[in-house]
Amino acid sequence: MDDRFSPGRWRLYAITDERIARGRSHLQVAEAVLRGGADVLQLRDKEAGGGKLYRVALQLRKLTREAKIPLIVNDRLDIALAVDADGVHVGPEDLPVSVARRILGPGKILGVSTETVEEALLAEKEGADYLGVGPVFEARGTKGDAGEPVGLERIAQIRRCCRLPIVAIGGINAENAREVREAGADAAAVISAIVAADDIEQAARRLKRILSGAEEGR
Amino acid sequence: MDDRFSPGRWRLYAITDERIARGRSHLQVAEAVLRGGADVLQLRDKEAGGGKLYRVALQLRKLTREAKIPLIVNDRLDIALAVDADGVHVGPEDLPVSVARRILGPGKILGVSTETVEEALLAEKEGADYLGVGPVFEARGTKGDAGEPVGLERIAQIRRCCRLPIVAIGGINAENAREVREAGADAAAVISAIVAADDIEQAARRLKRILSGAEEGR
Repeated sequence: MDDRFSPGRWRLYAITDERIARGRSHLQVAEAVLRGGADVLQLRDKEAGGGKLYRVALQLRKLTREAKIPLIVNDRLDIALAVDADGVHVGPEDLPVSVARRILGPGKILGVSTETVEEALLAEKEGADYLGVGPVFEARGTKGDAGEPVGLERIAQIRRCCRLPIVAIGGINAENAREVREAGADAAAVISAIVAADDIEQAARRLKRILSGAEEGR
Repeated sequence: MDDRFSPGRWRLYAITDERIARGRSHLQVAEAVLRGGADVLQLRDKEAGGGKLYRVALQLRKLTREAKIPLIVNDRLDIALAVDADGVHVGPEDLPVSVARRILGPGKILGVSTETVEEALLAEKEGADYLGVGPVFEARGTKGDAGEPVGLERIAQIRRCCRLPIVAIGGINAENAREVREAGADAAAVISAIVAADDIEQAARRLKRILSGAEEGR
């Protein structure tokens, strides 16, 4: 597998979310974040039906394949299978991890949202390839259903007991991205700090530099 | 394949829909419609996440397997695969027919919503096993997105040019079920006339008798 498809090598994990994209489409957001250096792209749209999701996923599949960047689909395994995405991300409201792994097969990337050490260990046991850990900080309006922030210490705890790569998520921006990496996360998943930015590409590029250790951050 | 799994043999196609079930769960609705003689059960829930859908689908899978009745999942192919449902039904807002067939494989039942002769012929060409044709009559509050009624004549038109079994849908009840069969439909898909009834089992049993030709209907 190409290094770029190995979650431990990711730094900037970009998630598209049309609801906060200020009128820009999934495709427009994706084009800008890839120009800005995102290492992986996740399509997330809890409101779209299967038909729209499929059409958008096809567009993003073409784009990410040209950029040689992995495409992850949130929740909908059928959409991931339909466009031959590189993987799926499941949260607590989605299909169980073991079931997702069974349908997806061994060759695809499976990401799992976890809040605690116990959940992280269980996800590892059930076949996760990486852990989405969070919400680290208070998120800004992207997930109404997100729980209380778990804080940076939780990243460090999970780092100590799990071998899986950690993608931290929740309220991460240029101000705090460096701390997230220092706490032990391999990557940061970013939605609003990129998708809602005036200049998506520039916001992504700055975050990528901070997460890669090439810039200190504010 | 067992006759009961052949769409041409179906008469009463019951769809669960919790929103109009007056507090009864998918499982409670399903138990009652199966006691009432439904030939096939579709799980439809556009609002539930993958996790809830999976749990409900597992319950209905157990129930339908015991009753030797096929289980169809609306839209979500991943849920259908996860519980080994007998098939999937896709509409215009869902995955394209050819894509659904590719993911589902040849051994599963694929139903496709169609409104016109052209759509019916296309669905047949792309691998549908049966056609959902409608809305035949004005539906009562189950599908806000349903179009103008196509009428009984459309059933007859599609019957004349397509070989696939027809499941008529939309506003069908004990008063008009006989006409639907006389127009050429093999089965009637019923939601509100069963799910919202005071006595679901009794409503299902009556419709089954009418659709089977054992009772005249009102």
